[in-house]
Amino acid sequence: MKDSNELLSRADLDFLLHDWLRVGDLTDRPRFAEHSRSTFDAILDVCADLARDRFAPHNRRSDTEEPKLVDGRVRLNPDVRPALDALAETGLLSATADHQLGGLQLPRVVHLASAAWFAAANVSTYGYAMLTVANSHLICAHGSADQINRFVLPMFEGRFHGTMCLSEPQAGSSLADTMTRARLADDGTYRLTGTKMWISGGDHELGENIVHLVLARTGAETSGVRGLSLFIVPKFLVEDDGSIGERNDVTLVGLNHKLGFRGTVNTVLSFGDGTHQPGGAAGAIGYLVGAPGEGLAQMFHMMNAVRLEVGACAAALGYTAYLKSLAYARTRPQGRTPGAKDANLPQVPLVEHADIRRMLLAQKSYAEGALALTLYCARLLDEQETAPEQPESARAGLLLDVLTPIAKSWPSQWCLHGTSLAIQVHGGYGYTRDYDVEQHYRDSRLNPIHEGTHGIHALDLLGRKTSMQDGAGIEALDEEMRRTIAATSSLGPEVSAHAADLDRARARLVEVTRLLHAHPDPVTRLANASLYLEAAGHIVLAWIWLEQLIALGDRDDAFARGKRSTAHYFRSYELPRVAPQLDLLASLDRTTVDLDPAWL
Amino acid sequence: MKDSNELLSRADLDFLLHDWLRVGDLTDRPRFAEHSRSTFDAILDVCADLARDRFAPHNRRSDTEEPKLVDGRVRLNPDVRPALDALAETGLLSATADHQLGGLQLPRVVHLASAAWFAAANVSTYGYAMLTVANSHLICAHGSADQINRFVLPMFEGRFHGTMCLSEPQAGSSLADTMTRARLADDGTYRLTGTKMWISGGDHELGENIVHLVLARTGAETSGVRGLSLFIVPKFLVEDDGSIGERNDVTLVGLNHKLGFRGTVNTVLSFGDGTHQPGGAAGAIGYLVGAPGEGLAQMFHMMNAVRLEVGACAAALGYTAYLKSLAYARTRPQGRTPGAKDANLPQVPLVEHADIRRMLLAQKSYAEGALALTLYCARLLDEQETAPEQPESARAGLLLDVLTPIAKSWPSQWCLHGTSLAIQVHGGYGYTRDYDVEQHYRDSRLNPIHEGTHGIHALDLLGRKTSMQDGAGIEALDEEMRRTIAATSSLGPEVSAHAADLDRARARLVEVTRLLHAHPDPVTRLANASLYLEAAGHIVLAWIWLEQLIALGDRDDAFARGKRSTAHYFRSYELPRVAPQLDLLASLDRTTVDLDPAWL
Repeated sequence: MKDSNELLSRADLDFLLHDWLRVGDLTDRPRFAEHSRSTFDAILDVCADLARDRFAPHNRRSDTEEPKLVDGRVRLNPDVRPALDALAETGLLSATADHQLGGLQLPRVVHLASAAWFAAANVSTYGYAMLTVANSHLICAHGSADQINRFVLPMFEGRFHGTMCLSEPQAGSSLADTMTRARLADDGTYRLTGTKMWISGGDHELGENIVHLVLARTGAETSGVRGLSLFIVPKFLVEDDGSIGERNDVTLVGLNHKLGFRGTVNTVLSFGDGTHQPGGAAGAIGYLVGAPGEGLAQMFHMMNAVRLEVGACAAALGYTAYLKSLAYARTRPQGRTPGAKDANLPQVPLVEHADIRRMLLAQKSYAEGALALTLYCARLLDEQETAPEQPESARAGLLLDVLTPIAKSWPSQWCLHGTSLAIQVHGGYGYTRDYDVEQHYRDSRLNPIHEGTHGIHALDLLGRKTSMQDGAGIEALDEEMRRTIAATSSLGPEVSAHAADLDRARARLVEVTRLLHAHPDPVTRLANASLYLEAAGHIVLAWIWLEQLIALGDRDDAFARGKRSTAHYFRSYELPRVAPQLDLLASLDRTTVDLDPAWL
Repeated sequence: MKDSNELLSRADLDFLLHDWLRVGDLTDRPRFAEHSRSTFDAILDVCADLARDRFAPHNRRSDTEEPKLVDGRVRLNPDVRPALDALAETGLLSATADHQLGGLQLPRVVHLASAAWFAAANVSTYGYAMLTVANSHLICAHGSADQINRFVLPMFEGRFHGTMCLSEPQAGSSLADTMTRARLADDGTYRLTGTKMWISGGDHELGENIVHLVLARTGAETSGVRGLSLFIVPKFLVEDDGSIGERNDVTLVGLNHKLGFRGTVNTVLSFGDGTHQPGGAAGAIGYLVGAPGEGLAQMFHMMNAVRLEVGACAAALGYTAYLKSLAYARTRPQGRTPGAKDANLPQVPLVEHADIRRMLLAQKSYAEGALALTLYCARLLDEQETAPEQPESARAGLLLDVLTPIAKSWPSQWCLHGTSLAIQVHGGYGYTRDYDVEQHYRDSRLNPIHEGTHGIHALDLLGRKTSMQDGAGIEALDEEMRRTIAATSSLGPEVSAHAADLDRARARLVEVTRLLHAHPDPVTRLANASLYLEAAGHIVLAWIWLEQLIALGDRDDAFARGKRSTAHYFRSYELPRVAPQLDLLASLDRTTVDLDPAWL
């Protein structure tokens, strides 16, 4: 690949970051004072080049030569390590961390934009870095100084890698049923025993060590969310001088073989099964992070960021699939348009066909919309962490709470659909492994499943995020949408029409939300939570598209016209989907609840 | 697999064939006089067993060990041939053929039901049989007695296999741009030269010979649909005594490596490139089928049947994915329902969650609806071919014309979505290759592409099938729907409500259809043909579900309750999707038409 513009559009990123989100303004704040537009630009340049040169070239190979278990060791595509090493060398693994930890104190919004390049190029290889960064940030937020020194700094250097060990074979979405146990030993460390499932990056030899963050139960309970704590369980113990010590009792039980995302090794790990016994102890040695019983709270603290990353990865996959199908549609001749059927004329490029354009506009609306939404949320993270005044910070947090399930789920659902449209634009060729889009489709299919399934986020949004604090979250979101709508009065008929459609949908969403929250029976109230998530998602995206229309100002180049056509597409073809969904929610339909499973 | 009920539901097939479509009545007709319900039942039993015992067991292996090119020869999974031989032994390859050709004169509707078992079990292996049967029927309809004897009878016996060679590398959907040439030789045969692409079953050693049906150009034109004729081009020439003769000049150029449907070898073939030169002639020897210039008409004559088969295969894949995810949801414990969060209680099976039920009902509505629609259409084929009076036959043909694009495209779109929901019900496990559903998902993704893409069928439906004969096709369909609606007056509130919703949607469809047909500009008229196809599809399916409600009568067992819940799901969750689609169509939206591709 010669041109990183088959991965993402730099012009779009510049528009979103600068013309819309005005990230340059952040440099007025103390935390970001050493930055400027030019440092932001330089970082994006580096990421685009690195993604194109070191990540994209082995994306297919990591798929066809998926991780293998050879003599009990994980063998990865050998191209993965040099790519991750090159990424570590740039310092991007600690990009958002404090200066005192060697970090760049980069705004999260710029970091997410930089991450999108790698996800577009090779989401599987980038997965290792993403997990390592998430793990590091959790320890930075909740761990001790010693834990940070011993485990985080080597992760920032790319020498150690990190994982998150939450799920178990019997408990995927249901963390209350975690069975892994941690027993306090005399030396103040813990001994862990249990099995963890779906552990990405759970074993490999990409660096010197792997730092597992493990959710385990210290108390006597056998279920429930209380008593769950988080532990650092390294693959190899780390001596006080930072050197690598004994092997800890973390054993690779097996690999999961997946539909896509194959380059990220996915494992079953056994903790404390006696395969390795460091110091003769029974159980894997673990170090408690923060206070006992705080495990879930610590996790959720970092979850917003991780879920945004999943949304951004989904957006990036949809984005590159869109750009590739666009390039194909521009060059591949096929048939003739209606009314111009003279077979003596040459065939026209695919992009001349209305239905192909519809599929391209749909993809563009999903990919650019999803990227914009996740960047908006990352900007809220920056606001939450660095706003000069507490009320702004609190409000950003409130908006983030309500937007995060959408920012994770909407890109996961619609950019997957976008990759399917990218296949369709390619026709039969798109169904072959000679083109990239089928892999993007398979990789994308994971996104509605991991980091909380679609259904889990739906329950989170309707059952918690929109109802907590007496509905403050949905109210804040609604205020933001109304503020945007109010700013459109003098911007011409197309923008006004978009604002009017959004205004109707927004009002209906608020109305239906109140109706649902007022219903006494939680089973009925939540029965169609997934439809609520999807309707709210489309309305939020219509708002994000309106925001972009406003940010275009009176710009009238090809870029601006493309944005306007895409916003028009979204308003005309996509937003109307929500009306029947909200009607169904308002009807308190109990089809699913009243069903006897024996009838299926 | 011990139970064929993980492939399809025999109870549902019996309901559809007997209670609803009353296929037993067909045995009153001379063509089917030797049949009875018991012969139909016996054939379905044989197919269910064979599918379970010989087809399902190697479905995964054909995917993981896809066809390979070894020393210029295609090496297939060795389990494929015994399965096809067993199928041939049952006589099913000539099931619908005339007695005089050794056929069983089975109604097409029963044949399609029998085919669905094999597609559910192993669509890739069944693909070879499907192609062979389609090829045979075309030659039976248009070929000479000698061609039938020489090529068709060995195909019916399973000794020869058949292909359809239409697409070319530069012309997928655009048959007007076919470049393969056929030159009349002195001996009355033709010599073909050209390259054909996407040829399923194009080369292999499953039998003694492969009979290619090749679309080629005899005249001087370089494009256009006139002058296209169809030729039989066997891999090996066949002597007058039926013995295998010289190798013909058909050369395997390469294999296509696909996302799914991997067990069906897909090839690029070169005709007449001089690799083999039978009798020293230049070009592959071909035999004209019927009259010159009739190639497209002959093809379209068999297309209805082939497209129904694609729809039925899509339905079968969606069906087995549904049944497998249902079985999983019934046994896998996961979490607790809202309002019953006591973690001391054991986890409940997935099927207790409303959102899981929603996904199961959606799958059931797609799979059972799609199967019902394709069987209904196959019943129309029988009517077209055997109705005692000409007007009934003509009307069946008219309905088939308008329903076929829907019967191909709707199952392809929605049962693909169903397989995605089947993955989602399985959670992370569904994303692994340890379960079948990811393969069903990949296999299903072909269906909206082959045998005419989604967009091609959309243009066919809106641009031809609904407008031809002054709109007679859509009018006939509308009459059928109104007749069904009229039959519901005394069937209770649920059926009446379904009928009322369908009546509104049907009326709106007719209104929008007229408005579109009246528009003078074909580009504007057809710009959103895909939305028209999708809206018409959902309305037709709401009708098919109403038909099933009526056929249930006052039956009130678990089966009937399941059907009623699923019909209710379809009416409440699915049918409302069409209103915004029809509104957009009525607005004559030109977003896609007015777009300048440079803006993308």
